[in-house]
Amino acid sequence: MKIVVKGVGITPFGELWNEDVPSLTRTATMTALIDAGLELEDIDALVVGNMLLPYVSNQSHVGAAIAEALSYAGPSIAIEAACASGGVAVRQAMALLYSKMAKRVLVVGVEKMTDVSSGEVTGFLMGASSEEERMMGATFPSLYAMMQQRYQVEFGCSEEEIASAAVASHFHGSLNPKAHFQAAITTAQVLSSPLVSDPIHLLSCSPVSDGAAAVILEAVNVPSRDSIVVLGSGQGHDALSLSGRQTLTSMNATKNAMKQALQQSCVSADLINIVELHDCFSIAEIIALEDLGLVARGRGAKFLADGYGRYDSDGVAINTSGGLKACGHPVGATGIKQVVEIVDQLRGRAGKRQVVNALFGLTHNVGGTGATAVVHILGRWK
Amino acid sequence: MKIVVKGVGITPFGELWNEDVPSLTRTATMTALIDAGLELEDIDALVVGNMLLPYVSNQSHVGAAIAEALSYAGPSIAIEAACASGGVAVRQAMALLYSKMAKRVLVVGVEKMTDVSSGEVTGFLMGASSEEERMMGATFPSLYAMMQQRYQVEFGCSEEEIASAAVASHFHGSLNPKAHFQAAITTAQVLSSPLVSDPIHLLSCSPVSDGAAAVILEAVNVPSRDSIVVLGSGQGHDALSLSGRQTLTSMNATKNAMKQALQQSCVSADLINIVELHDCFSIAEIIALEDLGLVARGRGAKFLADGYGRYDSDGVAINTSGGLKACGHPVGATGIKQVVEIVDQLRGRAGKRQVVNALFGLTHNVGGTGATAVVHILGRWK
Repeated sequence: MKIVVKGVGITPFGELWNEDVPSLTRTATMTALIDAGLELEDIDALVVGNMLLPYVSNQSHVGAAIAEALSYAGPSIAIEAACASGGVAVRQAMALLYSKMAKRVLVVGVEKMTDVSSGEVTGFLMGASSEEERMMGATFPSLYAMMQQRYQVEFGCSEEEIASAAVASHFHGSLNPKAHFQAAITTAQVLSSPLVSDPIHLLSCSPVSDGAAAVILEAVNVPSRDSIVVLGSGQGHDALSLSGRQTLTSMNATKNAMKQALQQSCVSADLINIVELHDCFSIAEIIALEDLGLVARGRGAKFLADGYGRYDSDGVAINTSGGLKACGHPVGATGIKQVVEIVDQLRGRAGKRQVVNALFGLTHNVGGTGATAVVHILGRWK
Repeated sequence: MKIVVKGVGITPFGELWNEDVPSLTRTATMTALIDAGLELEDIDALVVGNMLLPYVSNQSHVGAAIAEALSYAGPSIAIEAACASGGVAVRQAMALLYSKMAKRVLVVGVEKMTDVSSGEVTGFLMGASSEEERMMGATFPSLYAMMQQRYQVEFGCSEEEIASAAVASHFHGSLNPKAHFQAAITTAQVLSSPLVSDPIHLLSCSPVSDGAAAVILEAVNVPSRDSIVVLGSGQGHDALSLSGRQTLTSMNATKNAMKQALQQSCVSADLINIVELHDCFSIAEIIALEDLGLVARGRGAKFLADGYGRYDSDGVAINTSGGLKACGHPVGATGIKQVVEIVDQLRGRAGKRQVVNALFGLTHNVGGTGATAVVHILGRWK
């Protein structure tokens, strides 16, 4: 049995003052249903990825609430795994399909983050970390700043090189009409933007965004030619607190998730043409490139600084959507948006940022500072 | 392939001032592991049922946080479905097993509700309802009060008869050393207790409790004789708001979940010896008895008033743990505690409240006022 992607849908990401969670959910879902040529009645189960509804809207019972927004009468479940909520939701949908508890599953990720102050949302997001870290007054930029400081020491890497990650993401964002930020930026702009937590600048950080993304997965015996198949998946874990990790410059969760996904998909890393990875901060992108085995250890920043990773450069294309940095990071939607981008690329529907002849794509979604990581490998069926 | 319950564990339920979420989780888990004769390393995945950690402790990333509390290194997922979080978590664990994504799954439900004021927790719990209901100032007692008012009108049933549900639960609670309340009460005491929302009295309501429960499920080809097997499961849904329902005196979600569970298990309702059902309020128990097909429509209160449903009476035994009312209702733990009680009964380990010769048991777990309901049917393998 194989799992195929029947349809995908996405809203623009950004500060969407005229949208709320129900309207975003409906837009992404209806787009995916039309793409799949299906009706809501054809769906056996709904899986929702969301982190912040309890905080922002006092809404728990998230599965039922999103089902109500869609007028969907079937069973729903809600998955929360911090910023990896979307990726874990896709994986849990796969479990429903492989178990034959459902034949077609709608996975929706949604987040409305801009209706509260940035101070509030920073506090809410710290729910993804440990009590120890919250009590120390840490914020996510400060936690990733420690990683970057250590990375620079270990690998003698410059801030300029690390800033290339944000520059590359904004370049791709400038080609994506759904992206939160569609302006290209320069390394100089990154380094002259305000310091949030040394050495992390404002333009090294992904933004607070609103948005939704939806994917419809179906279990089939034999995929038809050129359909997009989820070939493999993995979920890795590590300590919730940075203090419990073996190293600050690598994430075990990512490595383990990648290992599982490669094993299940029988695809080797060098066959992968396009990657959507979790660049919540520039340093996170650098570390992910290395942990996924796409770039040698300590060489991630150099790889981007040398102009690799672009949709039109040699080798693997990285974050053609604009990534979390430029496309935006509506937390629960991110892991599902990654799948949408890979599917659009594999189908040749990615517009100005289209990668030529892509056959295999990979998504990489991280919760917190790396306590959870999920990797999915997708491919065009031949 | 069949799913067997390898081990169960539970903490006392109640106001546990000396316990926190990690300690409760550890106690329930270690008890279940010892019961199963397993080590934490033997577990392939952790599924957590929890609703209130984001509110009470600013803790999201709940799967990773609970994994950390257990020093568990494998993959974790968190399920939130309001008061049905535990029941849905068990079902999602079944999906992981049926899909062969895991061979042994630990399901833990935990909640620490008494560290905040009762006003705060009442507000948090309203997250399980709809925005419409929250904006009207409704509380859960007031929503269930509307159901009870309508039920009394439709079926000419007295408050005394409905109060029998609380009396029966406290009777069983008095036989359960882990129950939050272990004192028997009378109908007169229920009706003279303060009115919370007419006609619901203080003693018609389940309490705010702390506690945890754990179940270890394993996929096997052929269950060994006398092992406890999860034979079937169902998950039903309805509108989130009461205003969207067809009736106030019956829950479609329960009916649909029951139908699916009966179908999957090939067990008929009259074979079931013991039931743990969702008595968050007395009226909820009455309605559940009828929706599960255990008692004729309009006869639920009379059934209990006549003394049926006790562990030692003729026919099916109801809520021998004391139910939510007397055993307590630590929200995320409740659906898992129900499984623990059924397993203990089927194994003949239920002490003073032991039902004689029980072969089939059923759990029924509801989210909110019935937007979600989950039913599991378990049996002793012959």
